[in-house]
Amino acid sequence: MIRAGVLGATGYAGIETVRILSSHPMAKITYAASKTYANKKISDVYPNLRGVCDIVLSDVDIQKIKESCDVVFTALPHGASKEVIPSLYNAGVKIIDLSGDFRYNDQKVYEKWYGTPHDCPQLLKKSVYGLCELHRNEIKNAQIIGNPGCYTTCSIMALAPLLAHRIVNTKNIIIDAKSGVTGAGRQSKLEYNFCECTENMHAYKIATHRHTSEIEQELSLIAGEEILVSFTPHLVPLKRGILATSYANLNGDYTDEDIYKIFAEFYKNEYFVRILKDALPETNHVAGSNFIEIGFKVDARLKRVVISSAIDNLFKGAAGQAVQNMNIMFSLDENCGIANGGIYL
Amino acid sequence: MIRAGVLGATGYAGIETVRILSSHPMAKITYAASKTYANKKISDVYPNLRGVCDIVLSDVDIQKIKESCDVVFTALPHGASKEVIPSLYNAGVKIIDLSGDFRYNDQKVYEKWYGTPHDCPQLLKKSVYGLCELHRNEIKNAQIIGNPGCYTTCSIMALAPLLAHRIVNTKNIIIDAKSGVTGAGRQSKLEYNFCECTENMHAYKIATHRHTSEIEQELSLIAGEEILVSFTPHLVPLKRGILATSYANLNGDYTDEDIYKIFAEFYKNEYFVRILKDALPETNHVAGSNFIEIGFKVDARLKRVVISSAIDNLFKGAAGQAVQNMNIMFSLDENCGIANGGIYL
Amino acid sequence: MIRAGVLGATGYAGIETVRILSSHPMAKITYAASKTYANKKISDVYPNLRGVCDIVLSDVDIQKIKESCDVVFTALPHGASKEVIPSLYNAGVKIIDLSGDFRYNDQKVYEKWYGTPHDCPQLLKKSVYGLCELHRNEIKNAQIIGNPGCYTTCSIMALAPLLAHRIVNTKNIIIDAKSGVTGAGRQSKLEYNFCECTENMHAYKIATHRHTSEIEQELSLIAGEEILVSFTPHLVPLKRGILATSYANLNGDYTDEDIYKIFAEFYKNEYFVRILKDALPETNHVAGSNFIEIGFKVDARLKRVVISSAIDNLFKGAAGQAVQNMNIMFSLDENCGIANGGIYL
Amino acid sequence: MIRAGVLGATGYAGIETVRILSSHPMAKITYAASKTYANKKISDVYPNLRGVCDIVLSDVDIQKIKESCDVVFTALPHGASKEVIPSLYNAGVKIIDLSGDFRYNDQKVYEKWYGTPHDCPQLLKKSVYGLCELHRNEIKNAQIIGNPGCYTTCSIMALAPLLAHRIVNTKNIIIDAKSGVTGAGRQSKLEYNFCECTENMHAYKIATHRHTSEIEQELSLIAGEEILVSFTPHLVPLKRGILATSYANLNGDYTDEDIYKIFAEFYKNEYFVRILKDALPETNHVAGSNFIEIGFKVDARLKRVVISSAIDNLFKGAAGQAVQNMNIMFSLDENCGIANGGIYL
Repeated sequence: MIRAGVLGATGYAGIETVRILSSHPMAKITYAASKTYANKKISDVYPNLRGVCDIVLSDVDIQKIKESCDVVFTALPHGASKEVIPSLYNAGVKIIDLSGDFRYNDQKVYEKWYGTPHDCPQLLKKSVYGLCELHRNEIKNAQIIGNPGCYTTCSIMALAPLLAHRIVNTKNIIIDAKSGVTGAGRQSKLEYNFCECTENMHAYKIATHRHTSEIEQELSLIAGEEILVSFTPHLVPLKRGILATSYANLNGDYTDEDIYKIFAEFYKNEYFVRILKDALPETNHVAGSNFIEIGFKVDARLKRVVISSAIDNLFKGAAGQAVQNMNIMFSLDENCGIANGGIYL
Repeated sequence: MIRAGVLGATGYAGIETVRILSSHPMAKITYAASKTYANKKISDVYPNLRGVCDIVLSDVDIQKIKESCDVVFTALPHGASKEVIPSLYNAGVKIIDLSGDFRYNDQKVYEKWYGTPHDCPQLLKKSVYGLCELHRNEIKNAQIIGNPGCYTTCSIMALAPLLAHRIVNTKNIIIDAKSGVTGAGRQSKLEYNFCECTENMHAYKIATHRHTSEIEQELSLIAGEEILVSFTPHLVPLKRGILATSYANLNGDYTDEDIYKIFAEFYKNEYFVRILKDALPETNHVAGSNFIEIGFKVDARLKRVVISSAIDNLFKGAAGQAVQNMNIMFSLDENCGIANGGIYL
Repeated sequence: MIRAGVLGATGYAGIETVRILSSHPMAKITYAASKTYANKKISDVYPNLRGVCDIVLSDVDIQKIKESCDVVFTALPHGASKEVIPSLYNAGVKIIDLSGDFRYNDQKVYEKWYGTPHDCPQLLKKSVYGLCELHRNEIKNAQIIGNPGCYTTCSIMALAPLLAHRIVNTKNIIIDAKSGVTGAGRQSKLEYNFCECTENMHAYKIATHRHTSEIEQELSLIAGEEILVSFTPHLVPLKRGILATSYANLNGDYTDEDIYKIFAEFYKNEYFVRILKDALPETNHVAGSNFIEIGFKVDARLKRVVISSAIDNLFKGAAGQAVQNMNIMFSLDENCGIANGGIYL
Repeated sequence: MIRAGVLGATGYAGIETVRILSSHPMAKITYAASKTYANKKISDVYPNLRGVCDIVLSDVDIQKIKESCDVVFTALPHGASKEVIPSLYNAGVKIIDLSGDFRYNDQKVYEKWYGTPHDCPQLLKKSVYGLCELHRNEIKNAQIIGNPGCYTTCSIMALAPLLAHRIVNTKNIIIDAKSGVTGAGRQSKLEYNFCECTENMHAYKIATHRHTSEIEQELSLIAGEEILVSFTPHLVPLKRGILATSYANLNGDYTDEDIYKIFAEFYKNEYFVRILKDALPETNHVAGSNFIEIGFKVDARLKRVVISSAIDNLFKGAAGQAVQNMNIMFSLDENCGIANGGIYL
């Protein structure tokens, strides 16, 4: 059994990691930490786990983590990371970090979009971007993973095949993304109060959301040239789900059939990728699962393709992909413990 | 008092018209028709109106409508229209039609997008497109109004000022719109079942939604050249609200301040238009009201502007604007009976 | 025009009062106060009111309130009240208090259930319980009103006719009530976060909720003997709406028809009361309105009657009834400015 | 591997059974039937299962079922049952029926509450009521199980320990239950349209809901005397979850501590039962799981106890308990394949 630790275990991404690991046949939670709830049972904070996972939350104790964990999932607030991760890294523990800290190839891009110096630039160089379908081989041998953001996973996977095959123009790419409220994390701010969120929706952080830079890094890599995108996030009144609608101008007279073939071929061996034909993704097809649905439609009139992609932001967009990364790093079946379909209802 | 009739009174747009007229100080519902519920009280179908509007629903009786109505709001299914509207028109009754039938300047555009011959091409020529803020003067003297669609009102008003001032390129305009479920009307289809809609969202009719043609007609008029747009509608789990996110490439180095001035000037005398500065629209700011909120953000990096606009699809997007049209046609204050702010909670 | 002040104007009950008064034809908001947002426009806090009510929020300035208001709606946090209300009372201003402070005939009952000494016992004696349908005559001449709680309005009105006519046993009365989340007020606590509330429901404060004492006071008055009730509140995932399901044992072999007659007669002149026959109340029939719906069913097998009643907790359960009280106090039509039916959609 | 069939596989209870069995380590779906969707893949109807369970739906073919299944879960519409179940029974197939048909000890009670003659009275005698925690021993040896209703599971388990120990009076028991919309099944009726359900709640079938009789049968068995209850179901706007609030008069001066001990003892070996101390159940603690949460509060003032219990109506209230029954019938660990905690978010 893989001995797994979860730091920041009571945030929404943290607890989803705990929930998934609780029923993973090859892993076992041996350490869970939470600053706010140290010394409480995790099931006192999340009663849905009572009788299922009753581990007592610790404060972050590096020594104990080293001794008890083969892999650590870090879902820590910024700053806490820098004291913890290098030390664990040096002790040989595998690290899957769910923050934005280890997702960048270029420290400067991180520092520009996050507005803060990077805490561990030397580790940044060693970290691998954990979008499993695109970086599987590097992940296998990595010791530290920057687990991708939710918006970014959903956006990158929708555009990668078309850019890889130079089907679409690299200019004028627009990604309009919609997220459920769990994407904001576990917060007690008024703006996330039920009465303020339900029956409401709005855009936010237009042209400035950090995930833009993460999307651009990966799409540029795939395209082999610098790609800049408009990325607009929106908050919509549901819990789990991201829907990204991506627009790109076609480089030729491609049909829906052409596009389908490209997607189907690109993702042909991927358990978690569903390419839709004559249908469009819905977030409740993937909620509660690690799947991504991708559909599209060519607008021949405008020589443009519109791609629609859907994931569960907490699962494939965070904790599920983190466990997928663990599976790859430990040479398990990639869908081990996360093979289930969505909950739908 | 204006004597008003509502045909198709028990659909969602119809009943919203009834609800608004019920508290209108200068109008009075004298006729309400519903094929399905003829001979029932309207308040037996919508108990929220019991004691407030208990009119008995009739079948459509042209003679009686002529005698009892100065204006008729038609929210009829396709086909029913053609037998009713010409006859009422000839009798001199003013008509505000909430369907797509009288929104087009060019019969062929209608026939292409609706896939059916137009029933009353001669009346189509006389009808005025009832987007009040753009066609006020023609509306004043019109006898028949094609009341705009919900998506179209929200989209056109967001782009009109920029196109009128040639601030943005006329190519590559993209409108990504999200609608609440009342937009689908009163339906008993499985796909609109609570369990299928809540905690779910998806795009639909990509590149083929009829409102595209309506948006293109109006934007082309304003720009003075043919404009084609990508328009993508989405269904999101709330009742009232449309949010449109529009993308356009800037023709120069405009700042947020520049854009604000253009919007503020363009809509300076408009009671129902709120231009936001350093803030973005939210649908619950306008739900239950005839207001539109418009915000925006210049992405200097990409020389692009992103405009966000929000309306209540049933109110400004249908029944409220219909009443606004009535107010204009009868020389009342334009906000008479619809001056209220949104319900927010 | 009645000059009205609202203190605590940015809480949920406060802002609903402002919203309703904004379209009241005989009243005008001349003063609005908020500790948190003093010196801001109210429409900066609630953008749905922009262009509709843009009054600048003040701190509480007794002198200015006296000069500018005929009536003041107080929706203040406990403690603030005691410094404000006596002073306004002495100046002859009419007061409609939305807190629990002036709802009790017996100071001791208040002190027991609220766990705190009463701040103004002398005013408590002069205050009238503002459940309009039951205390209309006293309200007419009152200077200070204790505006009823939301749960209590919904519960008392459902049971009053049966107790008045001694149709039901005074023992074993059980009230199981469900409330939307606005009932908790404007709060930034984690438990009211969208993700914690949506797709969730639970009971709370079983056997200890303060509204129990308010219900018991009024039912005892009506029955002419002491009545104790089980009252259980529940939180359900919607914004507006209270549904109370009340159970009482019948004193005889009454039929549904008998019960209907008693209710219909008891409330025969009441604009805001809808007694249902062969149908049960739904909260969306009353949401956004001052109406109450009451339905019931005799369970002949158990010689018990079950009464179901529904109101909008913010409207009839708070701000709407407060305005109804104002209308009575100023001899206006009782439904002036609040005659509208619910919004339904 | 247990070879399992699911008849009526595309209804909400049916598909939840399929979903749960898809990840069950000891069972395998070998047959799935749906009248409406025969010859389609199940994952074409429920795309969340694509790649996870792509079995082709059959019509009901008794011969094939006999050959391919060790156990059959029947979630059929009334009438279809009678042709299928006896034949399967005679062939020795184990049957877990999710309808109301095999839940009754007394055919007359069934016929009275369902208003129809029973189709297979001879099998009714052999069937066991599948509330696992109460009838485990009979279930072990049964060939046919009447899987309990959702409301009934939640209600019976909340009252059983108190009645077994004669702690509460057998008169005046009241159960006020609230259900999410999946409880209505997969329906395209207008009343379950998102716009009609969301932001709405109401009681229904007061004093006449069929589950009343099922609750009374089991509580009477436990109490050793005939028990009649008031049972009121309500529809609330969420997908998964039942919350039952039960009221009973105490036979003595019991404290919360006393009640806790009784519950804790009664369910001491039950994996799926959580007894709460100083806390109340919430449906999102159990949604997506087979757990039941039970909390309570003594109202010493009224000598009454109020019990609150929560389950997931589709899981413990239908498909999950059905699988729990299968586990018992096949001598597996009772929580095999259903040990997971709720999804919470």
